[in-house]
Amino acid sequence: MRRRHLGSVLLACAAPALAQSDPLPSWRDGAARQAILDFVAAVTTQGGPNFVAPARRIAVFDNDGTLWVEQPAYTQLLFVLDRLRLMAPRNPGWRQDALFSAALAGDIRRVAAGGMAGLLRLVAAAQAGTTPEEFQIIAGAWLATARDRRWGRPYTALVYQPMLEVLALLRANGFTNFIVSGGGVEFVRAFSDAAYRIPPHRVVGSTHALRAIEQDGEVTLLREGRVDFVDDGPGKPVGIARQIGQRPIAAFGNSDGDWHMLRYTTEGDGRRLGVIIRHDDAEREYAYDRQSHIGRLARALDDAPARGWTVVSMREDWARIFPS
Amino acid sequence: MRRRHLGSVLLACAAPALAQSDPLPSWRDGAARQAILDFVAAVTTQGGPNFVAPARRIAVFDNDGTLWVEQPAYTQLLFVLDRLRLMAPRNPGWRQDALFSAALAGDIRRVAAGGMAGLLRLVAAAQAGTTPEEFQIIAGAWLATARDRRWGRPYTALVYQPMLEVLALLRANGFTNFIVSGGGVEFVRAFSDAAYRIPPHRVVGSTHALRAIEQDGEVTLLREGRVDFVDDGPGKPVGIARQIGQRPIAAFGNSDGDWHMLRYTTEGDGRRLGVIIRHDDAEREYAYDRQSHIGRLARALDDAPARGWTVVSMREDWARIFPS
Repeated sequence: MRRRHLGSVLLACAAPALAQSDPLPSWRDGAARQAILDFVAAVTTQGGPNFVAPARRIAVFDNDGTLWVEQPAYTQLLFVLDRLRLMAPRNPGWRQDALFSAALAGDIRRVAAGGMAGLLRLVAAAQAGTTPEEFQIIAGAWLATARDRRWGRPYTALVYQPMLEVLALLRANGFTNFIVSGGGVEFVRAFSDAAYRIPPHRVVGSTHALRAIEQDGEVTLLREGRVDFVDDGPGKPVGIARQIGQRPIAAFGNSDGDWHMLRYTTEGDGRRLGVIIRHDDAEREYAYDRQSHIGRLARALDDAPARGWTVVSMREDWARIFPS
Repeated sequence: MRRRHLGSVLLACAAPALAQSDPLPSWRDGAARQAILDFVAAVTTQGGPNFVAPARRIAVFDNDGTLWVEQPAYTQLLFVLDRLRLMAPRNPGWRQDALFSAALAGDIRRVAAGGMAGLLRLVAAAQAGTTPEEFQIIAGAWLATARDRRWGRPYTALVYQPMLEVLALLRANGFTNFIVSGGGVEFVRAFSDAAYRIPPHRVVGSTHALRAIEQDGEVTLLREGRVDFVDDGPGKPVGIARQIGQRPIAAFGNSDGDWHMLRYTTEGDGRRLGVIIRHDDAEREYAYDRQSHIGRLARALDDAPARGWTVVSMREDWARIFPS
């Protein structure tokens, strides 16, 4: 084999993305698309003023409302409600608890009013009596059969195609992608690899206290029933520091719960990218911001221009929403 | 280019290790070396009874005494003692504290008697007033200049060459390697990528409480000064579940602090590998087990035969100890 052939094949191995003509085919031409492409070009141009070594190319993504649909309720909440209904006969005391009775009645508005803390209490109850491994299997089985009411599709089909393209673009350019979600970490891990090619250890999320005990002659993990970390708002930079151990250079979010993460990311030195997905497409998805119980977006939207964050209009910037 | 050429080059891209004749050149022939090679062959043989998909090939490594030298004191402790000495003039109260006065006197035996909890109290003090990013830079600067007294070499040169070969063998066979250390996570992250090719997010370790606050117009991380997670003993399976999110199939340790991790790993279904590095080479490194304050090894050694764990004799199994 002649030398130049070897060189070209090795190049093809190392950087398969180079052959792709349009890395963001579901994005319409516009400022948002250009901001993402410009950022990637800037930090990957060797010898350029904004070059960042691959080991430092850390990108973080909120999950609910940023990578997949979060309306009319967080998918994790719908899963938990289904599971609590199954468990209710063995837990008669739940009827006396305002949050649990709302959950069992399927009153999503009342449950959502309890915020992330209320949701995580329900998650703790839904996880009771399972190890983390068992819980991921239960969540995976639910995701395989449950269907969204509006589209009649599995929830994992309601991921945003344009964001899958961003994940792939970053991956092809040497980035390591992480999910940083307010949701329970084990639920997100049940589908993150299949849906986003993000393996379990690259999911940061809220957690419930665990303890290692000896049971039936084996070391097993027992849940203590309390939430010990809320990965939302100011918790997101903490979760990033603890689990990722590096400040990201790119962050994608859609709500005020991502405000601290966007700031922590974009306040670092050198070229940074902050992106807010704005839900303004009631026809193809949902339209909500300041008044929403779920995915409330106000402060981060107001701050975006001064902080240089890119606001993505789903209606204007995305040629399609879901994978076909 | 003819087709068979392309095929062979692509194969070379995908699996560079295939070309290597001996993946463990610093290991002498023997049961330990064979156990590692047999395990890797078993879980990577497609269609075989023990095949494990690459996404599930998770290997965990203790750090101190398993990947690098931990005698006469944990390297992190030596760093902390140096740093506390620099900080002592601004902290006169330390002289009244038994642990801190032992630390400032350089009395490693008395400090070591305080166990991992005592060490982590000292780490908390050494980290005070720094963000995680700043602390990693400080630790990295110390590692670049400090020298071990016995060998006169940087501590990062006192990693075990045979273990570097195991890390490379597993990496070449589709494994994802993690460090699961009782040490403070930020200290290990300061050198893990350079020393072991394990990036910061694949280091699990003990942590100190952090809080995100606004300071000088920026979101920054403030330390609360208390240890909030001890990744040692029964903490190791918890740290694994929280940060890795999968049960490993291979675990390497050297002390009773790894006993729970070895059990949690090897009690899972399917083919598993548990390895204990035994320090029995006073001439080339150190010899210690049951009586040592640091890296005490008793219960895990006693349990090894019945649990099928492989005990590596540094004296017998390793042809060399350190990289040249």
